[in-house]
Amino acid sequence: MTGASVGERTLDFGSGVIVAAGAAAGGKQEGAGPLGEFFDHLCDDSYFGQTSWEGAETVLQQRCLHAACVKAGVEQAALRWVLSGDLQNQCTSSAYAMRDVPVPHLGLYSACATMGEALCLGAVLTAMSGGPVCAMTSSHFCVAERQFRTPLEYGCQRPPTSQWTVTGAGAVILRASGTGPALRFATFGRVVDAGIKDLSNMGAAMAPAALDTLQAHFHDTGRSPADYDAVITGDLGRCGNEILADLLRREGVEALSPVFTDCGMLIFDPEAQDVHAGGSGAGCSASVLAGHILRNMNEGVWNRVLFAPTGALMSPVTVQQGESIPAVCHAVALENVPAPAERQEKETVSWN
Amino acid sequence: MTGASVGERTLDFGSGVIVAAGAAAGGKQEGAGPLGEFFDHLCDDSYFGQTSWEGAETVLQQRCLHAACVKAGVEQAALRWVLSGDLQNQCTSSAYAMRDVPVPHLGLYSACATMGEALCLGAVLTAMSGGPVCAMTSSHFCVAERQFRTPLEYGCQRPPTSQWTVTGAGAVILRASGTGPALRFATFGRVVDAGIKDLSNMGAAMAPAALDTLQAHFHDTGRSPADYDAVITGDLGRCGNEILADLLRREGVEALSPVFTDCGMLIFDPEAQDVHAGGSGAGCSASVLAGHILRNMNEGVWNRVLFAPTGALMSPVTVQQGESIPAVCHAVALENVPAPAERQEKETVSWN
Repeated sequence: MTGASVGERTLDFGSGVIVAAGAAAGGKQEGAGPLGEFFDHLCDDSYFGQTSWEGAETVLQQRCLHAACVKAGVEQAALRWVLSGDLQNQCTSSAYAMRDVPVPHLGLYSACATMGEALCLGAVLTAMSGGPVCAMTSSHFCVAERQFRTPLEYGCQRPPTSQWTVTGAGAVILRASGTGPALRFATFGRVVDAGIKDLSNMGAAMAPAALDTLQAHFHDTGRSPADYDAVITGDLGRCGNEILADLLRREGVEALSPVFTDCGMLIFDPEAQDVHAGGSGAGCSASVLAGHILRNMNEGVWNRVLFAPTGALMSPVTVQQGESIPAVCHAVALENVPAPAERQEKETVSWN
Repeated sequence: MTGASVGERTLDFGSGVIVAAGAAAGGKQEGAGPLGEFFDHLCDDSYFGQTSWEGAETVLQQRCLHAACVKAGVEQAALRWVLSGDLQNQCTSSAYAMRDVPVPHLGLYSACATMGEALCLGAVLTAMSGGPVCAMTSSHFCVAERQFRTPLEYGCQRPPTSQWTVTGAGAVILRASGTGPALRFATFGRVVDAGIKDLSNMGAAMAPAALDTLQAHFHDTGRSPADYDAVITGDLGRCGNEILADLLRREGVEALSPVFTDCGMLIFDPEAQDVHAGGSGAGCSASVLAGHILRNMNEGVWNRVLFAPTGALMSPVTVQQGESIPAVCHAVALENVPAPAERQEKETVSWN
């Protein structure tokens, strides 16, 4: 079956798209955080054995892709498509990671929401072709600081609303059958600009985009937050998470924690790690998904998760030119499909 | 019907995806070129009434999107998805152009091959949903020179292999029915790196990627160049076009002009315009498609066209770091679907 339209912005794949496996790679800071144990690969050297941070980020993607394929029992060369993106100018870590992978590549850019876009489009391609398809994104703290802010050597003061770009990557393998959570719904985001111009307050710029996509998702599917064990936004961080909660409250939705949480809040320890408002970067939501979220789903801790990565779509140039910061959020609903016997039992307690 | 897999890298959409309309916008140089008459909108001011070149490129996309929707008889708000990309760092002209368009946005990056990626993925989404879907890309000479090479004020000498980035945008509207050429096949590209390190010789970097995708297309579909009225690569320019012809010849394929041509060769006049090896940029192939190619197909000058945009996936940073330039090429086969009576007649003269 292919994706059926449900409402204006959502596709329903039923149980036709399965998340077969995921793998996450990260750096020293990520390994020291509360989700350290969920990473498949950690390295204390920010260069990952390369001569540049850009090259290091390419290695992060290569290791993730390799690990995810091994866990899914899929040869890299058997992948139908790899959909990937990152924050580097011209998305180079994604392109360079694909030089030795002899399968079609689709480069994507939705900033830190790119993993959401890759999953939405990956689900479409899997539903159409059977897969397997890989969705992958990455980011690197040192690359992002130099490119978006100031060279690390400046030692700039960071304001409390700023976030810490995750050095990490996450990859998942989608296919049409087998074991693993189903990617049931994909809700596609539109560009939302709330007029924020502060490069150090991405959470404020992205929260309205998260609101827009969550509303569309609940409207299109007829679901509510209560239908999910966890609603996990991309990397709003603590400030953006609070703003989203306020915005939802105005709409009559109580965004109760810990059901409403955020990859940027989960990945670092606010007490022990000096990351201010939390983590960010295209590799943040991807590595939290491929490690923490999939593990919790596979162990039955969560059975239904709404995963909604958020991205800020500015560049340093547009902000210097006085432009505000547009944002986007693409969401996917993941759910454990119970075995037929279980399903019948669950239905009596109003599953679905 | 949705896309059926044909071989490893190609999807066959039959007559289920139609190019309903296209629109092209360009600058002064593009208007003065041999394809000037095919542009829907031309402006002599490189700022397009804005205060920055980056803002001007956003306007190029907005005008194209508007014109394409008008020509297709589709409201912008009725589009199911807009798939778009550009060469600016963080693809900002695409994101900013979508701030006032209230439909889902999928940001793509395959450098100058992005229009090919947008058409391939747009066809998948159209086949699945019925559409309408917009595929769009842009580039701007002044933005690209500053970002990839040197500020214009330097007045750098340009080597003969260099190309001139097109100031332009192209948008097409895809839907599942109606009049217009069918997007029959989509052949997806993989990343190919031939080891070229010269930022001023993109044609040499991209020709091997074009070869790889054209070979995959002919292998998967069982077609040969003789089955097409025109095989039009992205923006290899004159140097890249000659290299591709050499590479094809080694494979036993004679890449005869004018059937084998290139958007970068078509858009400017090599005698009257000082553009060295020809045009380039994500807006080059897009505007040539949306103007020249679609017009020729709608007038029956061409009935079958293989459109294969090519992109070089480096950034200035990776090249400064000593890396070579990877490239990609995504191709779509467009064909006028004859009326049933015509088709029967054609079949007797071995159409297909």
